[in-house]
Amino acid sequence: MNRRVIGWIIAWVLKVEGYLLLFPCVIAYIYRDKEGWVYLAFALIAIAGGYLLSFRAPRNMEIYQREGNVAVGLAWICISLYGALPFVMTGEIPKYVDAVFEIVSGFTTTGSSILKDVEALSHTSLFWRSFSHWIGGMGVLVFILMLLPARGGSHMNLMKAESPGVEVSKFVPKVKNNASSLYRIYLGMTAAMIIVLLISDMNWFDSLCITFGAAGTGGFAILNSSCASYTAAQQWIITIGMIAFGVNFSFYFLALTRHGKEALKMEEVRTYIAIIVVSAVLIAVNIHNQFPGFYQSWGKTFRDAFFQVGTIITTTGYSTTNFDLWPSFSKTILFFLMIFGACAGSTGGGIKISRLILAFKTIRSQLYQIVHPRGVRQVKMSGQVVSPKTIRSCCIFLVSYFAIFGLSIFLISADGHDFETNVSAVAATLNNIGPGFGEVGPICNFSFFSTFSKIVLIFDMLIGRLEIIPILILFYPRTWKNNG
Amino acid sequence: MNRRVIGWIIAWVLKVEGYLLLFPCVIAYIYRDKEGWVYLAFALIAIAGGYLLSFRAPRNMEIYQREGNVAVGLAWICISLYGALPFVMTGEIPKYVDAVFEIVSGFTTTGSSILKDVEALSHTSLFWRSFSHWIGGMGVLVFILMLLPARGGSHMNLMKAESPGVEVSKFVPKVKNNASSLYRIYLGMTAAMIIVLLISDMNWFDSLCITFGAAGTGGFAILNSSCASYTAAQQWIITIGMIAFGVNFSFYFLALTRHGKEALKMEEVRTYIAIIVVSAVLIAVNIHNQFPGFYQSWGKTFRDAFFQVGTIITTTGYSTTNFDLWPSFSKTILFFLMIFGACAGSTGGGIKISRLILAFKTIRSQLYQIVHPRGVRQVKMSGQVVSPKTIRSCCIFLVSYFAIFGLSIFLISADGHDFETNVSAVAATLNNIGPGFGEVGPICNFSFFSTFSKIVLIFDMLIGRLEIIPILILFYPRTWKNNG
Repeated sequence: MNRRVIGWIIAWVLKVEGYLLLFPCVIAYIYRDKEGWVYLAFALIAIAGGYLLSFRAPRNMEIYQREGNVAVGLAWICISLYGALPFVMTGEIPKYVDAVFEIVSGFTTTGSSILKDVEALSHTSLFWRSFSHWIGGMGVLVFILMLLPARGGSHMNLMKAESPGVEVSKFVPKVKNNASSLYRIYLGMTAAMIIVLLISDMNWFDSLCITFGAAGTGGFAILNSSCASYTAAQQWIITIGMIAFGVNFSFYFLALTRHGKEALKMEEVRTYIAIIVVSAVLIAVNIHNQFPGFYQSWGKTFRDAFFQVGTIITTTGYSTTNFDLWPSFSKTILFFLMIFGACAGSTGGGIKISRLILAFKTIRSQLYQIVHPRGVRQVKMSGQVVSPKTIRSCCIFLVSYFAIFGLSIFLISADGHDFETNVSAVAATLNNIGPGFGEVGPICNFSFFSTFSKIVLIFDMLIGRLEIIPILILFYPRTWKNNG
Repeated sequence: MNRRVIGWIIAWVLKVEGYLLLFPCVIAYIYRDKEGWVYLAFALIAIAGGYLLSFRAPRNMEIYQREGNVAVGLAWICISLYGALPFVMTGEIPKYVDAVFEIVSGFTTTGSSILKDVEALSHTSLFWRSFSHWIGGMGVLVFILMLLPARGGSHMNLMKAESPGVEVSKFVPKVKNNASSLYRIYLGMTAAMIIVLLISDMNWFDSLCITFGAAGTGGFAILNSSCASYTAAQQWIITIGMIAFGVNFSFYFLALTRHGKEALKMEEVRTYIAIIVVSAVLIAVNIHNQFPGFYQSWGKTFRDAFFQVGTIITTTGYSTTNFDLWPSFSKTILFFLMIFGACAGSTGGGIKISRLILAFKTIRSQLYQIVHPRGVRQVKMSGQVVSPKTIRSCCIFLVSYFAIFGLSIFLISADGHDFETNVSAVAATLNNIGPGFGEVGPICNFSFFSTFSKIVLIFDMLIGRLEIIPILILFYPRTWKNNG
């Protein structure tokens, strides 16, 4: 294995993290937070250290799949371990494991929190928490790829490892080579959402943080009540914003490059929208008039239904109501949306809609094969044939996903909490959502878990964000042998 | 599709069911149960009807995969719909949907019951319930294959559709062609268990019914307390019996045909035994001294731990204690054993240990491929290479399994019961276990579900026993078109 290039990439990542740590310093300056000095110190250390360690580029810059995956896995662990330090040093999150949990939850755009009182944090730390969503949403390494001098195919292996979803569409590789066009869309949409929120009369700090959380589909709120206290209009803006960031970015790329027709043909996006509408309507009918005096008006009913469906399917994790109190049928719908997740190629987590479609079509083609043993029927997505290799890795992904889901529940069950809490804690972290049901419901937090369980959940968040392989490969002994 | 041959097979199945219904008549004669007349009437109707309908064999006896699967799916539905009638006519289970639930639970060797008071049933009906486990364990059509004149390859497609598990071993097809040798092992083991239970001083009726339940890994008990009131020795006998019936029957076939070494090499059997021992020890340590004055002696602790692990992993479903009261860690272990299930080629349900091993090895080979892109590493089981086709259908099986698991939970959640109850009701039926946790725990029953939910769970039991395809294919529109 090319260890040098991995070390060099991690040094680069550290340097970038240093620069990103300067943003909270600006907030500290505005609000006169004394915590800003801690952030400044860590920013400068990271920048200096990063420059020193990445000073001499390795001669052999080849990055194969193995190096790509290991670099991404280690880089994400390193930025998390480092990014948690300011929380500890400012004394705002005294326990290191809690601080790591919080920042991993940020970078992986999960939004689960161990904080009992979010509002007690300084503006600087609140900003760093929300900003980490925005950074993690598009990926740290994708960002670096724009800065590094182009070195051809090697980049692909880094990008592949960090980007979510299956590749089923022809143009995706082209888009991927063009990291900066993705970032431009991301920046543009972020700016648009901030402006609309400002127009709706939200203050600038809230607009910034809420948009970061929605853009990264993260879900860290800056109020203990999450988004419940915002106006109806603001809640609708956030709902639409979250759903928009859960759409496959290829859709926007196509639309912007005058391929509107192709964009509208994308099966994944159509299915995604259909699932949202159907789920929200089912829930609205189910909760309407359930709580005396609460869901009597259809306006409020639909607003809460769409907000919660949007926040859960995109794996954001904001909330406008304690949906843990909803009837069992609605909760079950939300539970499945947690697992479904958003579109591939978006900032959202979960299994991804494209994998669901692919799994469904693969099962159907298996039935076809039994009924017509001599017939041939290829699996197609948006009109294009999907290769058997893609189907294979999709199936293996799903099997690994359920295996990790099960193993995590088993490991944290040693804490002795009830079954619903364990299942939904794992679902909420592995799918990068944030809140779950029961003891980890929207008005609760993850602080009561043991250190061991927190570490399990930290790995679940990373596994969910990086789609299994980059983390799993770190535990595979052959990875570390130099015979490849 | 060859509809004639399917109709003819179903007529044959009806005839066989008629003969099997004569056995409860014998019990009725011994106990002077007036219910016997009902059973006799249904037996004679089935025999007469079966003979009439199967009188003229169709000219075209070709059975392809499609016909094999459809015949098996429909045959199981028909014997269930017919086999439920005596319960209704004797007035012991007045609602037809409940009677169907009960007999499907019997034939599929699930053991979930809608009865609040088992002991109120007549001996005749108790026997028919338990006997249905024994019939369903080995399969109804496998039995018919022995009676039908040999017609070569066509039988394989019937047998494949009804037999559980993946085919990974070379000798399995040979064994499969030899249906009667499987039945001889099954009969021999059943007889052995009955004799040992009689020696342990159990009365003959209990010995018979308990053995039928263990042999088919069903779990219908004839006492409300299941197996709690039997002696320690009897409980150990039942434990060992259940575990023995969960072993791949190829193991016994090899052992009996002087291939002892090959038998001991079988990875699946070794893993199966290892999982049982590790789980039981973990549970024993977890429950020991948990309930004051209850699990103080290690003897009782280990007996209950091994009994419950054996009953759950083999998907039998007897119980000697209310394991729903056990701590969360032990319950979680049991929950996973529910899903794991027993060995392929046994009478047990669940995913099957061989599929678990195969899934694990497939994931490992995926990692190997990433680390060594130019290397080739074949997946092996018990020293033999597994074909990509087998891996593919194993993965598709697992994905379909989880999809059906999810869909069923969603459908029954409309009843409004809590999450744990819904999840474990589906787990208990889809894996053919019987009792679950929460409201469907070992001392409870399934009577409180709505008719709609009962129908969903009936299909789950059939899907679990027949391993998805034979039931799923009935809902695939192309199956019924005559263009194949």
